[in-house]
Amino acid sequence: MVFSDFGKRFTGPSGALELMDDMGHALAAGDDGVMMLGGGNPGRIPAMRELFMRRLAEVADDPASFDRMFANYSPPAGDVGFRRSLARLLRSHCGFDVGEEHIALTSGSQFSFFLLFNLLGGVFDGGTMKKILLPVTPEYIGYKDQGLVDNLFTARRSTIKELPDALFKYRVDFDNLPSNEALGAICVSRPTNPTGNVITDREMGRLDGLAQDWQVPLIVDAAYGQPFPGINFVDTQPIWNENIILCLSLSKLGLPGIRTGIVIARPDIARAIASCTAVMNLSVPSVGAALLDEWVASGKIIEFGETYIRPFYQRKAARTLDALRKALQGYPVRVHTPEGAMFLWVWFPGLPIHCKELYERLKQRGVLVIPGHHFFPGLDEPWTHGEQCLRLSYAQDQDMVKKGIGIIAEEVKRAFD
Amino acid sequence: MVFSDFGKRFTGPSGALELMDDMGHALAAGDDGVMMLGGGNPGRIPAMRELFMRRLAEVADDPASFDRMFANYSPPAGDVGFRRSLARLLRSHCGFDVGEEHIALTSGSQFSFFLLFNLLGGVFDGGTMKKILLPVTPEYIGYKDQGLVDNLFTARRSTIKELPDALFKYRVDFDNLPSNEALGAICVSRPTNPTGNVITDREMGRLDGLAQDWQVPLIVDAAYGQPFPGINFVDTQPIWNENIILCLSLSKLGLPGIRTGIVIARPDIARAIASCTAVMNLSVPSVGAALLDEWVASGKIIEFGETYIRPFYQRKAARTLDALRKALQGYPVRVHTPEGAMFLWVWFPGLPIHCKELYERLKQRGVLVIPGHHFFPGLDEPWTHGEQCLRLSYAQDQDMVKKGIGIIAEEVKRAFD
Repeated sequence: MVFSDFGKRFTGPSGALELMDDMGHALAAGDDGVMMLGGGNPGRIPAMRELFMRRLAEVADDPASFDRMFANYSPPAGDVGFRRSLARLLRSHCGFDVGEEHIALTSGSQFSFFLLFNLLGGVFDGGTMKKILLPVTPEYIGYKDQGLVDNLFTARRSTIKELPDALFKYRVDFDNLPSNEALGAICVSRPTNPTGNVITDREMGRLDGLAQDWQVPLIVDAAYGQPFPGINFVDTQPIWNENIILCLSLSKLGLPGIRTGIVIARPDIARAIASCTAVMNLSVPSVGAALLDEWVASGKIIEFGETYIRPFYQRKAARTLDALRKALQGYPVRVHTPEGAMFLWVWFPGLPIHCKELYERLKQRGVLVIPGHHFFPGLDEPWTHGEQCLRLSYAQDQDMVKKGIGIIAEEVKRAFD
Repeated sequence: MVFSDFGKRFTGPSGALELMDDMGHALAAGDDGVMMLGGGNPGRIPAMRELFMRRLAEVADDPASFDRMFANYSPPAGDVGFRRSLARLLRSHCGFDVGEEHIALTSGSQFSFFLLFNLLGGVFDGGTMKKILLPVTPEYIGYKDQGLVDNLFTARRSTIKELPDALFKYRVDFDNLPSNEALGAICVSRPTNPTGNVITDREMGRLDGLAQDWQVPLIVDAAYGQPFPGINFVDTQPIWNENIILCLSLSKLGLPGIRTGIVIARPDIARAIASCTAVMNLSVPSVGAALLDEWVASGKIIEFGETYIRPFYQRKAARTLDALRKALQGYPVRVHTPEGAMFLWVWFPGLPIHCKELYERLKQRGVLVIPGHHFFPGLDEPWTHGEQCLRLSYAQDQDMVKKGIGIIAEEVKRAFD
């Protein structure tokens, strides 16, 4: 089949497709098969699952809840009651001055970004081109291929700050950011996927200031962060104002199957998201909104994050880091200080093979990871640093992760020796 | 906010947005408020709801089912087990020669069309433009604004065949179809939304032949039709071959909140849909696949359609038609013979006001309908016929529909008198 230019653009090889295909095959292979350190599938947190299942049993017993969850089309911006509850929570818990008109739900956070990037960047009246600035790389693989036009992104290297114990932290290189010409928006993920970096409050403040000076929105992808699911291991200040577009997700609470993204932005932007939804999707899924409204209204969703979700991942981060260090003792390995999300970002300085090759060798041995070079969307200049990195998810079963780490260590040693 | 060209295209006024906004407000107003004869929200079928709620209670009690439904990302083409069950059902029940590789799920049928239209139509290598032919109008309002480029659609008037009892039926005007130059696909909905028309097997055969001659796929939107939910009141032959793209939905079973569309097509097209999903959406909702897999595997989903869903709508169609005739006795009113879906398509020959005006007057009185002129996507030539029509949904509570019909009759009479 010959596809349109749009078709060629979106059906070519892409990091997201590779990632999701790997994950699908791993799931299909079942427990005996693949060691899944690749995807972004959240972990199984027994306490959360119990809460979800109890809530689901309530829905299964109450026709009104059932109807709200399954039997009605949501309005294009999403369930009104949920948006009202969420606005209240954001006001009381985060101090954001928002109402339901600032909130639009989407059919998943990935789709929020597709819409935002192409609404704010791309070709404008008279053929002007505006880009999306990713001031921090490594940055999320899933942004990479989302442009409806070529070269939608422009990105910058982070600087690397060495920390004790063979850790490091990426910092925003403010001296190297472009002037505002031809920018449509700035975007960062916080915590950063893939690195587990949490951009500091000071850095966020400066990015916010720059965005305001340049009169472009600052998009903050908080799919892993605050106010929920709260997978951040360092204290930070949630930040929002009319120039910030905060994107949340229900996936990392443990619910990726329900596809619910949340965009918090000035009303004209929230309205634009809803318009796109109406035309392209008719409606957004109601399942998440109906399932979680009570917990959002009561604030329990924050409490659950703090009590169950954050500690679960923080414990896993520490154990995985420990296992990795032990397994690779004496070899050049550095790890980004784990400040959030569910990944270790591992750097092997001087790695003699491209991380792509390492990825293939690991896949052969049944260990799925994501090679680092995928995480530099929009970065034009070559940076060998990225070819020496891997993203490892520590969300899944600890024994499996540990076994995977053992095989990774063997292959890394083989590459170095 | 100034949006990109893409943004301007998708945030302008659109029929789908108006429709969904109306529906959202009606829902928010609650039972006391609006008479909802507008949207495509399916009706409440007590037997189906009971089945769904019982199934949901099972999921709420079984961690493996819960995980499959909520806690995992589906692969980009959708849940593998569900696709396998569905392929088996399509082989055994419909005689289609398909496997799981022919099936891609999407986040709702609307999004299936967004992808298909823009994959198969639009701008191609070297700047060639290919259009989507809608050989039958009136046709679904939701196609209208889905093009990433201007003038994606080209459409033709149907011919009108008068039937006894002030009924009529649209027929494909085969003498008036364009040659194949510059076409990317042909698309029809069957049963047709908004008219309740079921294009005959003979007409389908001819369209299939033309599509093959012209070497373009024939897209069949069977969101209301066969094999499920089966809201067709005339016997027809489901049709599929490697040149046909059959689009199904779980919405009209009574589950619009879960956003699940189904595309059945040659593997390269199904794969293209999955690729787009990976990049734009990461994944599709798992809820519907996990909820319904058992019924698809056992074939019960067909049985439920025949036993509960079809009779429910067929009864309502007859009652609504009866009420309308009684209320408008002596006035010029013709109705498309109700052969499926959940709408009456009403034509008021010689209506002295534009249906848009009638829509506004009815909205003022708390009755939501959809004015007919929205249902001619891609039709360039003016056709006053469309300005004399309304689409009335009869899916909701019978008393409400009857009350709405009474008000419609009053306003139509006022317009004529």
